[in-house]
Amino acid sequence: MNKYMQLAYDAAQEGMTKNFGGPFGAVIVRDGEVIAVAHNEVLGTNDPTAHAEIVAIRKATAKLGRFNISDCEIYSTCEPCPMCLAAIHWAGIRKLYFGADRHDSTIGGFDDEFIYQLMEGTANSPLLHPEIIDQKPCADLFNIWNKKQDRIMY
Amino acid sequence: MNKYMQLAYDAAQEGMTKNFGGPFGAVIVRDGEVIAVAHNEVLGTNDPTAHAEIVAIRKATAKLGRFNISDCEIYSTCEPCPMCLAAIHWAGIRKLYFGADRHDSTIGGFDDEFIYQLMEGTANSPLLHPEIIDQKPCADLFNIWNKKQDRIMY
Repeated sequence: MNKYMQLAYDAAQEGMTKNFGGPFGAVIVRDGEVIAVAHNEVLGTNDPTAHAEIVAIRKATAKLGRFNISDCEIYSTCEPCPMCLAAIHWAGIRKLYFGADRHDSTIGGFDDEFIYQLMEGTANSPLLHPEIIDQKPCADLFNIWNKKQDRIMY
Repeated sequence: MNKYMQLAYDAAQEGMTKNFGGPFGAVIVRDGEVIAVAHNEVLGTNDPTAHAEIVAIRKATAKLGRFNISDCEIYSTCEPCPMCLAAIHWAGIRKLYFGADRHDSTIGGFDDEFIYQLMEGTANSPLLHPEIIDQKPCADLFNIWNKKQDRIMY
């Protein structure tokens, strides 16, 4: 087994054993050095965003002291859900390795199919029919942002 | 202005003033009660996942002590990016109100178009061409999960 994937695998098992979350682990590596190891923590922390990849990104960016970790690679025991895939993109990571795919995870009762349909706009979800309110003042926030002399783009 | 959106708007302005992040705010409400108010914290915390909606969800779930907050609604000053939309789904939230849309945000230099293309699988991104390694043992984690007597499904 790839040595980084082995670490992710071990983390996934540890997370399960501790009842911290489902069987998911992730590892972030830079130039062969392990920067962060994480497992799913949804159950242990009551945080629905605490998927292994998100936790690993938060640990790695905290450790490196920057929000862009484009010099890093990520290993995940399972294909990232859309939340995590987008987070990997926002972190600037360009290389993703994963083990199990979205179909394998259905064995464990984790059906990501709905969430992929949600992203495609084909799911039956009220989130795809949001109410738009106060659009004008909210859009104007971006004009205020543009006029801000000391803004930092990211 | 809707009173909850006003709170989100004020949070967005506060986040900008403090140089904590871009002009984005979010509020989570349950039965008319404000549970969490948040702004983007990407710059202030070096956490690329700290979009306003994610921070609001993390605050609300910590406050309520549960990862499912399906009894809550979310107000966001801007249309959630795919990471945040998926996070809103994972939190069980069924009602989303937003102000500015993905096109308005281009005024401020926040071009979410690429990330939407990434989700659709039409972007030119290495994340859509991941390397699959050690699929068999990683998929087997779900069999281990299934055999776990005290597992909690979520």
